[in-house]
Amino acid sequence: MTEAAAAASPLRLALWQAPQHSADIAGNLDRLEKTAREAKAGGADLLVTPEMFVTGYCIDAPTVQRLAESADGPISQRVSAIAADAGIGIVYGFAERAPDGRVFNAAQFVDAHGVRQGVYRKTHLFGGLDRENYSASDGSGPLFEINGWRFGCLICYDAEFPEAVRQVALRGADVVVVPTANMMGFDAVCLLLMPARAYENQCFVAYANCCGSEGRLDYCGTSVVAAPDGTLLAQAARDEALLYATLDAAHPGRTLNTYLADRLPGTYAALVA
Amino acid sequence: MTEAAAAASPLRLALWQAPQHSADIAGNLDRLEKTAREAKAGGADLLVTPEMFVTGYCIDAPTVQRLAESADGPISQRVSAIAADAGIGIVYGFAERAPDGRVFNAAQFVDAHGVRQGVYRKTHLFGGLDRENYSASDGSGPLFEINGWRFGCLICYDAEFPEAVRQVALRGADVVVVPTANMMGFDAVCLLLMPARAYENQCFVAYANCCGSEGRLDYCGTSVVAAPDGTLLAQAARDEALLYATLDAAHPGRTLNTYLADRLPGTYAALVA
Repeated sequence: MTEAAAAASPLRLALWQAPQHSADIAGNLDRLEKTAREAKAGGADLLVTPEMFVTGYCIDAPTVQRLAESADGPISQRVSAIAADAGIGIVYGFAERAPDGRVFNAAQFVDAHGVRQGVYRKTHLFGGLDRENYSASDGSGPLFEINGWRFGCLICYDAEFPEAVRQVALRGADVVVVPTANMMGFDAVCLLLMPARAYENQCFVAYANCCGSEGRLDYCGTSVVAAPDGTLLAQAARDEALLYATLDAAHPGRTLNTYLADRLPGTYAALVA
Repeated sequence: MTEAAAAASPLRLALWQAPQHSADIAGNLDRLEKTAREAKAGGADLLVTPEMFVTGYCIDAPTVQRLAESADGPISQRVSAIAADAGIGIVYGFAERAPDGRVFNAAQFVDAHGVRQGVYRKTHLFGGLDRENYSASDGSGPLFEINGWRFGCLICYDAEFPEAVRQVALRGADVVVVPTANMMGFDAVCLLLMPARAYENQCFVAYANCCGSEGRLDYCGTSVVAAPDGTLLAQAARDEALLYATLDAAHPGRTLNTYLADRLPGTYAALVA
């Protein structure tokens, strides 16, 4: 367990398993405002949306180019206002235009005062849709701190790679937050891989998926919050849901195993070959 | 899917979830002979024993020193005779004394003609017992081929590290065989981590545990054979069992995901830091 988490009060997470409304930024931000208030009323400290929630995920490359904004653009200003007004932190997915013009599949952390904490950019792009629409990140990413808890972020396909989650855990994350857009046929990612990631990294994993259909994509829902002992603290069904979980900094799963200390990096050369 | 596996006939595995009899090499080899014949009668091509089956696992350092043998010593000669007589491949755990005098927690592959295929030595030592008794391997290990199937091997704690299983999969293993001695309280290793390892590596995982008690250790049984779609082809309960699974080279789980192709080694530097 990290010292930060050991000193932290329990953290109440809300995951919003939401339908995607392609390219309807104004409508999506209105939905976000309503849900942020509901999550705050439910006691949540942090609300997590699915991947690319503000712009939609199943949109074509010209639409992505049209909707992409800088991390401090109008979308971020509206989300900051929503967060500050409701008094809740928000992690939201959007298309980020970087200063060099490249566009990333990104997620931004905003705290309960509306202050932007930073952006994570997707590293492992999935299939043609991602690869046509976005540049890939180099895998770097800051930790975000809320109420003494340290959060790492990955997006969707990233978290299916044990390498990616391990690196976030090695940076000291107590919780790995994963906005995602996972499809029918891949329930095992929700119910098998995410609890395994939590168990093998002595951390919590919060996996916030979409639901319903968007264009040709049928999402599988099944958002989960996994504890470091591999159990599920919360699990959604297929439909829209606002899922809550309270994370205990002293969860015994954090010290059930000593994987992070017992790794043998000197024997892992083939992983970077 | 590898070309080797694509061309291979289905492979029938037998996992022997056996009680450990500490330091009773003669008795353990007699038990192995009986079980090898039973597994062959059950149609198996390969029989896998738990970790350190021939010598026992919960033994002290002086006993390990006394019982350790070279990979071509009397134990291997007896196992080769058992394998050739029954006509079945065998993976067995034993204490190996290397030419330089070091002793390893090891597993040896012997084919159905009784020919030794090679040894894997445990890399991630677990707790005081392992660390007092054994030297740690550098993580290298050959692949073993049986009937066109390529097998990698890990031992117990090794397989809990995603890094270790990934490296075996990257070498081209169709199946990762894991002799183990996993204890009560760690069922999640059997039922969560092992299916996740199979899913994330597009391979089969065969995890052969002990059962019952040995000294101060209470084993959890629950040996499993996991398919590359994360489902369990076989699962034992707590007690002694000879568990069978037939592996299909064309299992659709092998191509359900493309993780091995989609890895981004250039972003994984922190894993070897």
